Amino acid sequence: MQRLVSYNINGQRQWGVLTADGNYIYSAEDLEETYFIPLGESMESFIEFGEEGLLNLAKVLEINSNDKMITPIPLNTVQLEVPFYPKRNVFCVGKNYKAHIKEFDHAEDPQAPGRPIFFTKAATSVIGPEEEIDAHTATTHQPDYEGELGVIIGKRGTNISEEDALKYVYGYTIINDVTARDLQKSHMQWFKGKSLDTFCPMGPTVMIGDWPVPFTIHTKVNGELRQEGNTQDLIFSIPRLIAELSEGMTLLPGDVIATGTPQGVGMGFNPPKFLKKGDTVEITIDPIGTLKNTVK
Amino acid sequence: MQRLVSYNINGQRQWGVLTADGNYIYSAEDLEETYFIPLGESMESFIEFGEEGLLNLAKVLEINSNDKMITPIPLNTVQLEVPFYPKRNVFCVGKNYKAHIKEFDHAEDPQAPGRPIFFTKAATSVIGPEEEIDAHTATTHQPDYEGELGVIIGKRGTNISEEDALKYVYGYTIINDVTARDLQKSHMQWFKGKSLDTFCPMGPTVMIGDWPVPFTIHTKVNGELRQEGNTQDLIFSIPRLIAELSEGMTLLPGDVIATGTPQGVGMGFNPPKFLKKGDTVEITIDPIGTLKNTVK
Repeated sequence: MQRLVSYNINGQRQWGVLTADGNYIYSAEDLEETYFIPLGESMESFIEFGEEGLLNLAKVLEINSNDKMITPIPLNTVQLEVPFYPKRNVFCVGKNYKAHIKEFDHAEDPQAPGRPIFFTKAATSVIGPEEEIDAHTATTHQPDYEGELGVIIGKRGTNISEEDALKYVYGYTIINDVTARDLQKSHMQWFKGKSLDTFCPMGPTVMIGDWPVPFTIHTKVNGELRQEGNTQDLIFSIPRLIAELSEGMTLLPGDVIATGTPQGVGMGFNPPKFLKKGDTVEITIDPIGTLKNTVK
Repeated sequence: MQRLVSYNINGQRQWGVLTADGNYIYSAEDLEETYFIPLGESMESFIEFGEEGLLNLAKVLEINSNDKMITPIPLNTVQLEVPFYPKRNVFCVGKNYKAHIKEFDHAEDPQAPGRPIFFTKAATSVIGPEEEIDAHTATTHQPDYEGELGVIIGKRGTNISEEDALKYVYGYTIINDVTARDLQKSHMQWFKGKSLDTFCPMGPTVMIGDWPVPFTIHTKVNGELRQEGNTQDLIFSIPRLIAELSEGMTLLPGDVIATGTPQGVGMGFNPPKFLKKGDTVEITIDPIGTLKNTVK
């Protein structure tokens, strides 16, 4: 398991790898220039580089663990940014946790969908950790949070089988699928209410490599625990989502799939707890980290 | 009014401008290299070049109309391709013609939506004129056509007013919003059933400049007239669509909005007339041209 980050240092966007304790970053540029092993000048190009890039990264980290020519940078001296910018719309899945369907449909005995409900968020809605979510008060009165596990696709594929699906996963990140509930309803299809600028916080890291247990998701708003979920409760598992989404439709390296949100979104409370100016949303999925954004 | 095309000549993708009769192409590369006025190496870059590119194009065409240094290429010696590849998902509008809502909802007195129904098609679904639509028989039993006017955005904008909206329009094209009706229904949100590979034929030209009257849309399947519409019957006009879509959400140069389909799609017939292998769909919008694709 490694965690990749992009960050701003002296006004420049860089990317690198967190140390195991999460407190320092090995700069990819430093590693590449010291050991003459290509990694890519951005995380976007590193992801497109695919397995060769991953092998190269493992190699330089191993060499460096012996000769220690590169000193990692303290995390608290840089500003983390969005790990990478998806080129295409972010794929999303609706109603993928039973308890969330109950609160969403206000139904005692919620019906799980027969097939995954896929929609997308505009690529222009993506922001990084610590960037501000715009409440868009002129456009919506009901901005809401949705903490989700994001799956990143590593290689091109169509008609991927469930059995093969995990081979197409590059890594994992955290997505806040921010939603204007009133627009989600009034426009009937969900795209617009999900795609306002700043409505897709993503990060803080991209976790690559093995992670043998299900992920737990915790969402806090102003420190109050609102969502507590576990990906073992997904109605459609990650392999199933990849299989269904890629059926007849090509997936590309760098595509992101937000896998759905567990119970506890703002609209599920009575009265609802929508986001407002000054609120801080923190979504934690170990070991990816905590995605923290404040509402402006 | 000018019509831009991309085409393949001797294995190379080029772009250029149709002559008024539509039978010849002025190659942009020839114009640029002869008059030393920059146009852009692809239609994608020409669109991003914005108004300066349009002014340059007008200039070289005027010079050439006098000195005639460039001889246009006969259209029938090249293979037209998709005019440009949208970077992002294609924005689409559902139920934007009253008569189509009637056939879609099987309702006598159809309810028009209060706000536009926006959804998207994956960028990977875009194909060019003459390319084949895959019937995806393993995935859907109900592939259907939808002839539509496509609006191309020319400059970045957010919260665009209806009054200003047409200033953001770069040009127009034709879209076949091919739809797997069964998937549209079973996945609940429309994205997946609209996004299978090859499900977004686009072209054959991009019409730029003034076009003072509404567009008429004719769709034929195997020569039989199925759809006959006029953009003056749009429930949400083009300026209104741009205003609503851009509210809180940034539009970018090269974004495409498919404005909705008129009455006469395959599912509207009794029994339905879905697409099958060997069918040819021709969508004509003057003066953009005819977008013709065969089903494989």
